[in-house]
Amino acid sequence: MKILILGIDGYIGWPLALRLIARGHEVSGADSFFTRERVREVNSDSITPIVSMEDRLQKLYQLWKKKIEFHKGDVSDPEFVYDLIKKIKPDAIVHLAEQRSAPYSMLGLKQATDTLTKNMIGTLNLVYAMKDIIPESHLLKLGTMGEYGTPNIDIPEGFFEIEYKDRKDFLPFPKFAGSWYHWSKVHDTNNLMFANKLWNLRITDVMQGVVYGTRTKEIEETDLYTRFDIDEVWGTALNRFCTQAVLDEPITPYGKGFQRRGFLSLEDSISCLTIGLEKPPEHGEYRVFNQFDEHYSVNELAEITSSTARDILNKRGKIEHVENPRIEKEEHYYNPEHSKLKALGYERKRALKEEIILMLKDIEKFKGKADNLRGVIKPKTVWKNSPGLDK
Amino acid sequence: MKILILGIDGYIGWPLALRLIARGHEVSGADSFFTRERVREVNSDSITPIVSMEDRLQKLYQLWKKKIEFHKGDVSDPEFVYDLIKKIKPDAIVHLAEQRSAPYSMLGLKQATDTLTKNMIGTLNLVYAMKDIIPESHLLKLGTMGEYGTPNIDIPEGFFEIEYKDRKDFLPFPKFAGSWYHWSKVHDTNNLMFANKLWNLRITDVMQGVVYGTRTKEIEETDLYTRFDIDEVWGTALNRFCTQAVLDEPITPYGKGFQRRGFLSLEDSISCLTIGLEKPPEHGEYRVFNQFDEHYSVNELAEITSSTARDILNKRGKIEHVENPRIEKEEHYYNPEHSKLKALGYERKRALKEEIILMLKDIEKFKGKADNLRGVIKPKTVWKNSPGLDK
Repeated sequence: MKILILGIDGYIGWPLALRLIARGHEVSGADSFFTRERVREVNSDSITPIVSMEDRLQKLYQLWKKKIEFHKGDVSDPEFVYDLIKKIKPDAIVHLAEQRSAPYSMLGLKQATDTLTKNMIGTLNLVYAMKDIIPESHLLKLGTMGEYGTPNIDIPEGFFEIEYKDRKDFLPFPKFAGSWYHWSKVHDTNNLMFANKLWNLRITDVMQGVVYGTRTKEIEETDLYTRFDIDEVWGTALNRFCTQAVLDEPITPYGKGFQRRGFLSLEDSISCLTIGLEKPPEHGEYRVFNQFDEHYSVNELAEITSSTARDILNKRGKIEHVENPRIEKEEHYYNPEHSKLKALGYERKRALKEEIILMLKDIEKFKGKADNLRGVIKPKTVWKNSPGLDK
Repeated sequence: MKILILGIDGYIGWPLALRLIARGHEVSGADSFFTRERVREVNSDSITPIVSMEDRLQKLYQLWKKKIEFHKGDVSDPEFVYDLIKKIKPDAIVHLAEQRSAPYSMLGLKQATDTLTKNMIGTLNLVYAMKDIIPESHLLKLGTMGEYGTPNIDIPEGFFEIEYKDRKDFLPFPKFAGSWYHWSKVHDTNNLMFANKLWNLRITDVMQGVVYGTRTKEIEETDLYTRFDIDEVWGTALNRFCTQAVLDEPITPYGKGFQRRGFLSLEDSISCLTIGLEKPPEHGEYRVFNQFDEHYSVNELAEITSSTARDILNKRGKIEHVENPRIEKEEHYYNPEHSKLKALGYERKRALKEEIILMLKDIEKFKGKADNLRGVIKPKTVWKNSPGLDK
């Protein structure tokens, strides 16, 4: 299958490219290197050693004799998107090329505006280019479980039958996101539902949980690492917790820590995305996957990280709750459905504890780099203080 | 009360300014004249004679000895918004300054992008400026009944109690809009709910039905007309039907014509908005009004327009269904709740037929201008053909 990965340089994009190549697909990709640049803006960096795209591709060719056609550019530029799609004419497009950090979107009005508009424009450019050039191809788009918020009822996979005043309909589940970033994904979801209605495009909208981990089997085989961010803006919860444990810094759940979210390992994320690509939707189908393995509270993750770090690395594993910089319920019901990917063949590869052991060992390898970044791990970006115009 | 009207030059903005002045409020306004310019782009124009803002304000001063402070600018420019709000420090802001045409948003990728992003950015600038400068003021924001789409269940006013798998929550009603314009309003609604959660802003989100009519009592008193658009891009259904009847052109419902929508007269729209302003929400309250008087099918409106035009103007009143350029259900259930404004004192001023008589007579006065615009009334903008990048 000819697959185009937008955002191929990212945490998910790169290991997905390796997986798809390993499975015999013809892979091309694009990236604007937005994340590499923005991570440096907050004085942070990937602690895993990531080489340039040029070097990644060169080494991949040396190892596997496989080529990836790469184009540098930004999907919020319609000319770039049209040219790219005309050139590649992919069977499937994986759209990972969005600003992906909730804290970044809360840094201020400028970042809020950029996140909300550029994420939206990229997706809009894509659906127009698809209907104009490759109307039968499949768009697999990364959304987030955070689109749903934390309602007091079960969360279905996208749509549900609703009964109100003795009448019924099958409708999209009402969303309530918790940051401008998460809302940008809700807006995308809404725009995608409409694009599907307009032009019968095949779309998979992936509501992904929080991803953790340093490796996939192809990263192990090639030593071609993907990025691993540990700072408060770009790092996700469990990745930060493991880094704190290795550095013998306190593990810092935000607030009470009973916030419960869906999580999955990088390995499992890549498996799920691959299933979504290899089992595409029908002509005219818009489908939603809730893509996570299990849900955990932040406290549960902090505790398992702490005990594992004590056991295998002889660390202190201290847990220290910090004031919650976000606006979110700290105790709530949480029960999202997630059966569609299992029905298509998804099975968890490694249990949480097993993956945490691997992560701790990997982070230990890059401890020097993590050590230099101690100062950027604890939260500084406070949701309600998001500054307006600087003047 | 000190009230700032953004979009004061528009169909709703101008008569609202007159009403608020007449009721003793201190009114200021801003506009970019976007609609005046864009209407000319489709070779159309208001058939009512609208003078420049300068002349409007001058004549208003001559007649009533009242001043309106006016600033030209675009709310998608954060500097303009911050400067304006610092200068005026209003008790309430009425936000009407958005691209307001569904067909315009479907003209192509460029217009889709502009509508989705600029509408969103304007609202975002406003909520940031409010929380920074006037956190206790009230934002009254124009949305549309079109945000809800046409579900097979009753439509509540914004939120509803939902039961799913034996659990309950009170959640936003799931939206399903029918054009990029309507989606831009859904995105605004979502962003406003979040801004309210972040900063406890007082917000009234008005889901307005389709407005029709040429006059309010202040327009009658001053002869200071508001704009009246009759073309397929900028004119609304009943306004177009009445114009077609006066020109003895066929009245053209789209498709089967059983599409049912909420409608209200311009006079009633202005009354509702005034109630919303004079009875503001509490600190921290986000409230939704479904603002319309009655719902009618497009066929019902075509028929009452036809019979009235036959009776009072001796016109033919021919009805000719045309292919539906939109993507919408042509037969559907429709029962939106609309009790909140009534509870606050809203009462209809004129019945539909009475208002149609006035409109037909007014349009007859400007028949010469309408006659020149015959060519732009019938639909040309076809939703599913919305073109992508021109190249």
